[in-house]
Amino acid sequence: MTVSPDPSDPHNVITELEVHDVRFPTSRHRDGSDAMNPFPDYSAAYLVLHTSSGEKGYGLVFTSGRGNGLQAAAIKELEPLVCGTSIDAAIADTAELSARVTNDGQLRWLGPQKGAIHMAAGAVVNAVWDLAARRAGKPLWQLLSELSPEQLVGLVDFRYLRDALTEDEALALLRAAEPGKAERTARLLAEGHPAYTTTPGWLGYDDDKLQRLCKEAVADGFGMIKLKVGADPAEDVRRLGLARAAVGSDVPIGIDANQVWGVAEAIEWVGRLGEFDPYWIEEPTSPDDILGHAAVRKAVSPIKVVTGEQCQNVIMFKQLLQADAIDAVQLDACRVGGVNELVAIILLAAKFGVPVCPHAGGVGLCELVQHFAMFDYVAVAGSWDDHYLEYVDHLHEHFVEPVVIENGRYVAPRVPGGGAEMKLDSIAEFTYPDGPAWRDETLEALHAEPSFSAP
Amino acid sequence: MTVSPDPSDPHNVITELEVHDVRFPTSRHRDGSDAMNPFPDYSAAYLVLHTSSGEKGYGLVFTSGRGNGLQAAAIKELEPLVCGTSIDAAIADTAELSARVTNDGQLRWLGPQKGAIHMAAGAVVNAVWDLAARRAGKPLWQLLSELSPEQLVGLVDFRYLRDALTEDEALALLRAAEPGKAERTARLLAEGHPAYTTTPGWLGYDDDKLQRLCKEAVADGFGMIKLKVGADPAEDVRRLGLARAAVGSDVPIGIDANQVWGVAEAIEWVGRLGEFDPYWIEEPTSPDDILGHAAVRKAVSPIKVVTGEQCQNVIMFKQLLQADAIDAVQLDACRVGGVNELVAIILLAAKFGVPVCPHAGGVGLCELVQHFAMFDYVAVAGSWDDHYLEYVDHLHEHFVEPVVIENGRYVAPRVPGGGAEMKLDSIAEFTYPDGPAWRDETLEALHAEPSFSAP
Repeated sequence: MTVSPDPSDPHNVITELEVHDVRFPTSRHRDGSDAMNPFPDYSAAYLVLHTSSGEKGYGLVFTSGRGNGLQAAAIKELEPLVCGTSIDAAIADTAELSARVTNDGQLRWLGPQKGAIHMAAGAVVNAVWDLAARRAGKPLWQLLSELSPEQLVGLVDFRYLRDALTEDEALALLRAAEPGKAERTARLLAEGHPAYTTTPGWLGYDDDKLQRLCKEAVADGFGMIKLKVGADPAEDVRRLGLARAAVGSDVPIGIDANQVWGVAEAIEWVGRLGEFDPYWIEEPTSPDDILGHAAVRKAVSPIKVVTGEQCQNVIMFKQLLQADAIDAVQLDACRVGGVNELVAIILLAAKFGVPVCPHAGGVGLCELVQHFAMFDYVAVAGSWDDHYLEYVDHLHEHFVEPVVIENGRYVAPRVPGGGAEMKLDSIAEFTYPDGPAWRDETLEALHAEPSFSAP
Repeated sequence: MTVSPDPSDPHNVITELEVHDVRFPTSRHRDGSDAMNPFPDYSAAYLVLHTSSGEKGYGLVFTSGRGNGLQAAAIKELEPLVCGTSIDAAIADTAELSARVTNDGQLRWLGPQKGAIHMAAGAVVNAVWDLAARRAGKPLWQLLSELSPEQLVGLVDFRYLRDALTEDEALALLRAAEPGKAERTARLLAEGHPAYTTTPGWLGYDDDKLQRLCKEAVADGFGMIKLKVGADPAEDVRRLGLARAAVGSDVPIGIDANQVWGVAEAIEWVGRLGEFDPYWIEEPTSPDDILGHAAVRKAVSPIKVVTGEQCQNVIMFKQLLQADAIDAVQLDACRVGGVNELVAIILLAAKFGVPVCPHAGGVGLCELVQHFAMFDYVAVAGSWDDHYLEYVDHLHEHFVEPVVIENGRYVAPRVPGGGAEMKLDSIAEFTYPDGPAWRDETLEALHAEPSFSAP
């Protein structure tokens, strides 16, 4: 398929995918440290989508440091597939755009629908939606929520989904959610979206910091907190005990193993932590192990099992739901193929009656993913029961419109767009390897040292 | 973990990952055309692993054209993780090397264990094994076959496998295969490995070429042939009818849909082709859809269901086997994390009693994957029942040691190494975009035109 500019409007086409390799040296303080990722440098492969009219759209892929340049190159690889495309046409048919960047007959070999090339597709699709929301003068959550059920179903590629969710079923559940949308929108704007925080629980923090941050989180109004586990069982018992003592028995505490266990090990380890009443175990094993998650869930019930931040696409989420493997869908705004695939995942979760509890943190993930949680509340699930949106207080200062948290809830954004736009000063300061933040030799030495978690 | 050169042997370390973007303009004649990949340019992200002693190891990742440069960059991204490593140490503990390039705490975000970054890890691991085999003076299949059961088990990362295969179970099945290894080695060397061919069945071929190539394949002694399907149901009925008429009722004919269907569509479409007695349906749906393959298999029995060329890792193969979803494991030498993970997949297949029928074709895949089929025969499965190794007669002339087919069987290689070394002239001629083969303007225009398969 050849993409030709619209001859009726030759000046209004996508002209460039400008990409930046932006990295923050977070490994210095072990912010974001967990059992699988001991020294992350939170990073963004950052995309500015240019059009000939001067309109811009913003997207990004969060990464963990090394590989961020490769991820930026993956986005750039998609430039020939979209440059010259009328932006009006792209907005009018985002399903076609999504298919084009996802199903290219040559590029798809690097996926398909997974890894760097799929996350790149997601950044491009999200940037087009960001531009669309800016043009509409609406935040993305509102733009999506105001689409009709038919329009929303039209966003989704059902090819691999129909054994779990058909177009008609999706239409029916969206229509059933129509009544009450106005009231829910008003409530969302008035109260904000419920959240939980992972701020207290990184593995690298000492006991005092852990307990202090736990208490602060509850005082700040968060409905739940989360601790990283999985590096050492005795330490986990001790740290979870400290956290439980700090917050009392009524606050749900999630625990997150970041994939370090096999199935039997997960069951045994979580069992040892059961006395502290963990609310959920997140990523007990490989994100690819659907049947493994199902086995863990059966064994550790009533402790919930959740995953999703590294769930590569909607086909995997479909199976996690079909196999009764998870109690919450932790979708990530930058892992899959962008808005269209995220809508598909949200619809599937609704079909199976499983709450969406998005993954956030990193760089810009809070800014992006809040839109999907809010859309889900207003237009799909229609409820906040068991719906928690993750919050981590890192790196928001680098975004033009950082998230706002009040009383432990996300304040619904009112400014147009999808949230990915970064400040020009931040991009300049943290561009790798030539930005001023990376000229410090200590940082460079730290960054150059590979780290890995032995099996 | 910091990798330091071995001070006792400072001259014997990995010094460079030299990568090349080599592409063949196969889309001109639609060699390799199928329902999902209508215009592939068969390509290799090609790796020469250098050591300070001058020894070299060769690896590659096959791709379909666009994206090959990105894949080459993905391999280069691993250079800091392995450069400076003693090659003796790398060979002595390939499991550690595999973990290092697979589980880097930052890079793994781009996978984990999937897509471009995982295929890159596979190329590096395979290049080290190629060097090891050269040093041992043995073809890779023989080097692997002569390892003890304990050594083979030591190659594998069992973290995510133990719910399906434990170390003890793997040891037991390898020990059970010890008797008869010498006889099987002799038989393999005398007779070669059974094969099937996909040469007749590409979608872009006309009827005369289809029937002529079918007849030639049978005359050449291949035990099975394979046709691409999935673009048009009436055409598939017609083409499969032509093929069946050409070869008679006794030759198994596999059909391959290259992932174009959803579950219900696959069941219906394969049902329509049942009258021609297809031996297997390959890739009926997304390679990620384990439960989907299980549903298709149940519905189309006794037609077999197979997949694997785009199965991203051993965790997915484990589940395909656990879910009774497949009748053959079509592992690919360049899709997963290299020799160590391939050994794991072969052991899992043996545990479940499912034959390994590797994927080949592309660029160099026949040269590489034959070693794993032969190792499986000699040291693991111990049988050729239902074991077919794919053969396609493309691009072998570019390899220093091209595969040899006699009487429709792969002749066991006797030269040292793993098979990936390409001819220097071929690399120079087909390097993209500056090699002479790509200076033809017609080719450049063709290459620049994106193609994709709409849902």
